[in-house]
Amino acid sequence: MKRIFEIDPWKVVTHEFNPEDKRLQESMTSIGNEYMGMRGMFEEQYSGDTHQGIYLGGVWYPDKTRVGWWKNGYPKYFGKVPNAIDFVSVDIKIDGESIDLAKDKFSDFELCLDMKRGVLDRSFVVEKNGHRIKVESERFVSVAFKELYANKLTFTNLSNDDVQVEVTSFINADVYNEDSNYGEQFWTVLDKQVASDHGKLVGETAPNNFGTPQFTTEMAMTHVTDLQPAQAEETDKHVANRFSGTLTPNSPATFEKRVVVVTSRDYDTREALDAAADKLLSKAQESSYADLVKAQEDEWAARWEKSDITIDGDDAAQQGIRFNLFQLFSTYYGNDARLNIGPKGFTGEKYGGATYWDTEAFCLPVYLGTSKKEVPRNLLMYRYNQLDGAYHNAQEQGLKGALYPMVTFNGIECHNEWEITFEEIHRNSDIAYAIYNYTKMTGDESYVLNEGSKVLVEIARFWADRVHFSKRNGQYMIHGVTGADEYENNVDNNWYTNFMAQWELKYTLEILDKVSADQAAKLNVSADEKAKWQDIVDKMYLPEDKELGIFVQHDGFLDKEITLDDHNNPINEIPADELPINQHWSWDHILRSPYIKQADVLQAMWYFMDEFTEEQKKRNFDFYEPLTVHESSLSASIYAIMAADLRYQEKSVELYERTARLDLDNYNNDTVDGLHITAMSGGWLAIVQGFAGMRVVDGQLQFKPFVPEAWNGYHFRLNFRGRLLNVAVDKTGTKIELLSGDDLTIKVDGKDVKLSK
Amino acid sequence: MKRIFEIDPWKVVTHEFNPEDKRLQESMTSIGNEYMGMRGMFEEQYSGDTHQGIYLGGVWYPDKTRVGWWKNGYPKYFGKVPNAIDFVSVDIKIDGESIDLAKDKFSDFELCLDMKRGVLDRSFVVEKNGHRIKVESERFVSVAFKELYANKLTFTNLSNDDVQVEVTSFINADVYNEDSNYGEQFWTVLDKQVASDHGKLVGETAPNNFGTPQFTTEMAMTHVTDLQPAQAEETDKHVANRFSGTLTPNSPATFEKRVVVVTSRDYDTREALDAAADKLLSKAQESSYADLVKAQEDEWAARWEKSDITIDGDDAAQQGIRFNLFQLFSTYYGNDARLNIGPKGFTGEKYGGATYWDTEAFCLPVYLGTSKKEVPRNLLMYRYNQLDGAYHNAQEQGLKGALYPMVTFNGIECHNEWEITFEEIHRNSDIAYAIYNYTKMTGDESYVLNEGSKVLVEIARFWADRVHFSKRNGQYMIHGVTGADEYENNVDNNWYTNFMAQWELKYTLEILDKVSADQAAKLNVSADEKAKWQDIVDKMYLPEDKELGIFVQHDGFLDKEITLDDHNNPINEIPADELPINQHWSWDHILRSPYIKQADVLQAMWYFMDEFTEEQKKRNFDFYEPLTVHESSLSASIYAIMAADLRYQEKSVELYERTARLDLDNYNNDTVDGLHITAMSGGWLAIVQGFAGMRVVDGQLQFKPFVPEAWNGYHFRLNFRGRLLNVAVDKTGTKIELLSGDDLTIKVDGKDVKLSK
Repeated sequence: MKRIFEIDPWKVVTHEFNPEDKRLQESMTSIGNEYMGMRGMFEEQYSGDTHQGIYLGGVWYPDKTRVGWWKNGYPKYFGKVPNAIDFVSVDIKIDGESIDLAKDKFSDFELCLDMKRGVLDRSFVVEKNGHRIKVESERFVSVAFKELYANKLTFTNLSNDDVQVEVTSFINADVYNEDSNYGEQFWTVLDKQVASDHGKLVGETAPNNFGTPQFTTEMAMTHVTDLQPAQAEETDKHVANRFSGTLTPNSPATFEKRVVVVTSRDYDTREALDAAADKLLSKAQESSYADLVKAQEDEWAARWEKSDITIDGDDAAQQGIRFNLFQLFSTYYGNDARLNIGPKGFTGEKYGGATYWDTEAFCLPVYLGTSKKEVPRNLLMYRYNQLDGAYHNAQEQGLKGALYPMVTFNGIECHNEWEITFEEIHRNSDIAYAIYNYTKMTGDESYVLNEGSKVLVEIARFWADRVHFSKRNGQYMIHGVTGADEYENNVDNNWYTNFMAQWELKYTLEILDKVSADQAAKLNVSADEKAKWQDIVDKMYLPEDKELGIFVQHDGFLDKEITLDDHNNPINEIPADELPINQHWSWDHILRSPYIKQADVLQAMWYFMDEFTEEQKKRNFDFYEPLTVHESSLSASIYAIMAADLRYQEKSVELYERTARLDLDNYNNDTVDGLHITAMSGGWLAIVQGFAGMRVVDGQLQFKPFVPEAWNGYHFRLNFRGRLLNVAVDKTGTKIELLSGDDLTIKVDGKDVKLSK
Repeated sequence: MKRIFEIDPWKVVTHEFNPEDKRLQESMTSIGNEYMGMRGMFEEQYSGDTHQGIYLGGVWYPDKTRVGWWKNGYPKYFGKVPNAIDFVSVDIKIDGESIDLAKDKFSDFELCLDMKRGVLDRSFVVEKNGHRIKVESERFVSVAFKELYANKLTFTNLSNDDVQVEVTSFINADVYNEDSNYGEQFWTVLDKQVASDHGKLVGETAPNNFGTPQFTTEMAMTHVTDLQPAQAEETDKHVANRFSGTLTPNSPATFEKRVVVVTSRDYDTREALDAAADKLLSKAQESSYADLVKAQEDEWAARWEKSDITIDGDDAAQQGIRFNLFQLFSTYYGNDARLNIGPKGFTGEKYGGATYWDTEAFCLPVYLGTSKKEVPRNLLMYRYNQLDGAYHNAQEQGLKGALYPMVTFNGIECHNEWEITFEEIHRNSDIAYAIYNYTKMTGDESYVLNEGSKVLVEIARFWADRVHFSKRNGQYMIHGVTGADEYENNVDNNWYTNFMAQWELKYTLEILDKVSADQAAKLNVSADEKAKWQDIVDKMYLPEDKELGIFVQHDGFLDKEITLDDHNNPINEIPADELPINQHWSWDHILRSPYIKQADVLQAMWYFMDEFTEEQKKRNFDFYEPLTVHESSLSASIYAIMAADLRYQEKSVELYERTARLDLDNYNNDTVDGLHITAMSGGWLAIVQGFAGMRVVDGQLQFKPFVPEAWNGYHFRLNFRGRLLNVAVDKTGTKIELLSGDDLTIKVDGKDVKLSK
């Protein structure tokens, strides 16, 4: 755990700069607008350790696979997000010498991600050549004008005599991915032009041997500044504009860089790309900086209006939930159905790939509660549109139906660990569950009865082929899987996987009874198939220990070295200095230990919270919670909700903090690599589903709130079936207000409450 | 299955050349002398598909690891045998145009590996420019003069007019490994010299980041020829000598290339290396080719004298066993205790590494029966000398004691699949078993009571830390392992692993009672440790199914989809066109299937053949044999011995053929990559331990022979405790003769027989 930013309800702010925390600081100050985004690296030269990272949504590269021993069915490539051509860098020279905070003496440092406005501010006073210069920087990627990146620098000479300032602004294709296998570069330059005060560069991702499309991007920059154009510069890999001027004492000079970024994802010819870049650059030039930033602030204000959560009495908790929502919405806001939510978003390279089951399991519920239904529906359509890839993945394993990938850009699996790729197949059911969840929350059956039913059927076909009938036991089993708990690999009969496969088949059969004759004809499910699916539903093996009163995570789990207390609950015996275990223990040790990375049995209990008894929830929570180390960022939120449901309030609040402040407090000591974007859903889930006990039962919205002891209260906005609600909970009770939409009867603490405007 | 060579008792010979079988042909005609070796690629230019491979024993390179996701405990590098600097290539020009059998018209092709003499012969008549030239090539790496490679070319002009011949002979460092990750080269040239008819080149392996030593090699060539020196040539990467002459009709011209190869393994300075190369080159020059080849033939004759196996009535079987012994001895003959037996020997790149558990489990018994005891003792010392590496490997997993590596050059694990590296830990017991086996066969306790006891104790310490006590079951268990059957990964309680760990602890305790007080003090095993080991021995869980009467390969194995026949034995349901399954099924399919790659439960039954009842052996063989696909080259021999023991003669003979002719008939369709060197032990084991039923029980040598139906008989030489025996078995009975050494009483078919000279 490490907290390098101050507590503030709206800001991620610090007045300190420690070079050893530079990468962590960069991760934390990432910004994005769904279309593109970047880490919080400095714009100006920095010769110390830094991780430059700028990423374009949906632009990827199929890198060579890295496995020790390739086996049949392994993916052919590993999809990576290439570090984009750098349009951020500037070099600032004072009296001919570059500012470089790794070397210079400086003071009055402030770095502030203003989440309310969606801008990243920084300022410092640097000493150069006996002069003191104040430098202020503000930057953003626009949520109102997606192709726009803007950076405004202000220089103030605090000395008594003049200094010369020179700013060189770059578009530079000489970039590397740190995760490139052998120092290869992923971009080649197709074209470039540079004039005195503006320039552009067209780059293309490197060719690949896997038949996936190359991407082209054009970046054009222009500048508005008090300085004078001095020189245009170009090499094979970059273009640059240099400006210079004299800073007289206490008379600030400004330098604005405006860049527009377009890609072949939106424009299919070089000509169209070029025309778009020109047009958008004109648009960017026509507006004042004040107008550009105003549009940014207005759009963020509208987002917060719809979905802010306020916490009264705990600024750390407040900061946590806002950081969660800010970063989640910076990554995905549902404007482009071809995009999805990568686990690092635009904040780092790790994990590669764009789309994990995180989206359906953890993020979709947040969008269901914070957006109009088109946004979550887009996330469902994303999978429907990638069915061909899912067929391919199943075929690669010699199996029928559709196997959705663990990691993908285009539907085809691109992750390279067999124990994950082949085995963490519960994801197929999670994707089916998202259809169910969408339908349950929105009441909108149009997806499940059309596109959704196709997805369900193809997943059911996969399950029917993937299970086997154990004659010895007279039951269907699923061998060789990795559950949600990735600290166990290649286990047999993971309860979660088996339970969810059974559920998926059951749900698909239900939906088949409801689809239109037309759709049924298209789906073409035979009576034999249905009978087989029903047989699997009836005879699925679900490991259970009656004596302990728990579902058993997988066969053999209880044979592990587990110390039980007097209540038959495990005792966590990990010394504190061995946490997180994934940084201290060998993989061998982790696999054999009983410790659990993230909710596994409990994942299904969360999904179907109201279908398990209190006793079942309590026994399983009490048993598995002590064993869970939450070293997946996706874990604590689910336990927080379960704990809240069981009215383990203290535990629930502890877990809320762990999820909402996961990156702010660097809980798992890995935020240097980037933020845990998909886990940014956790704070919302813990408050809304946890503390407020939000459920939808038989179409009715219900709450059963409590207030964490340290808080005075909290309030949140909730989108539900065309209504916007304001839910305010404090120690005096719960007030729920209908802000827009039709009247509605909900349940609060078990009692019907009718809401009208 | 594919047979491209003719049946011949002493030769691997063909008169056909199919370019599509070039790699397979190259693998099959590999030669070696323990010190170095090479595939059977042509010496002259060949522009078609070929896999050039020349390897130097003990010279290796730690290449970057390739894993999708590095985790704690994974090895840092992957050890590879670099393709050596090429000292074999020559270019032969006829009237100015290079001979290239990929393009030229030719006839009378013969390629013959003469196993009796240890030379590779080839001849063909090529048409160039309207002329017909007969080319004959003979080459060998000398078993009498280890640094020597010799190649004699003879050119005969079958035309009526003169032709010009030009031969260029190379030492060339511009070589690649096919398994190089990104086309890197592993050799850099340090020095080179070339004169008109001789030259030399000094190369060094590339630097590495892992702190393992670089190797230097010096190669010097000289030539004896009827042609005239024409030109010396050098570039950055190679030296060459060119010779030319006129071939008059039917007057053969010869060209001999003699190369000596020395390395920094034997000479620790550049000066020493250089001096050695010069001295050895002089030695090579002083002898006539006839003398050099005579020394080769004499040494091979001596080897065959000591260890040949003859089979009367089945030339295919005869060829198989000779090929086995020839290739095994070409790889390792015990002259250098720093070397070991790599699975591909000098015949290909696959597998990397030099040393697998194959050596102890499969090869050691052959050397125990064919060599003086110093040879197998050297193999044991190899592990003792690498104890530091084994400590390191255990520590990397957070475990005590010694974990011998799955793959290594220096004792440190260098293989990169967690399911193998971390988990296939039965190897530790196999290495302990080799100590037991050596002691049992030789009667020599000097190793086990000294160095061996240290190895045993450190392995015991590993096991005591690696097991866990399952309170629920009141038994010790071993979770998270891969057994000998690598078609199952990360299983719990693999019977073989548990049984062998139990045995290892028991054996170590026995040995501790026998070591000297001095040695005991050095070993420093506490009473608590011993008590713990005894407790594990007493309470080890060994999965068993009483109803089926079998040991269960691992927990959950019987839950798989297995169809049993009326005798409760599995039915093999793999369609013939899906074999080998590792080339047709996805890894997922393989893992979940009940099919077994190689002996697993049966491996331990073989080790301790006389400690299991007939019924136990029969039930387990009958159950596991139908499930076993023998897709490890190490499988069929063990089943052949078990089948022989059970008097399943037909099955035993079928399995003998599969093991002895594995590569000759390309059973598993993978011999293109190189020969299965460690599996070359299989034919010997199947005949000696299988058909002849050789055992040592309480120090007494025993036989219980039978003759395969299709054979008239067989005979083999056996080294046993200082004696050389001749064992001849035919349909009339068994004749055992003592050729040298003291009188001996053995048992044949249960009856004592006294042998005297």
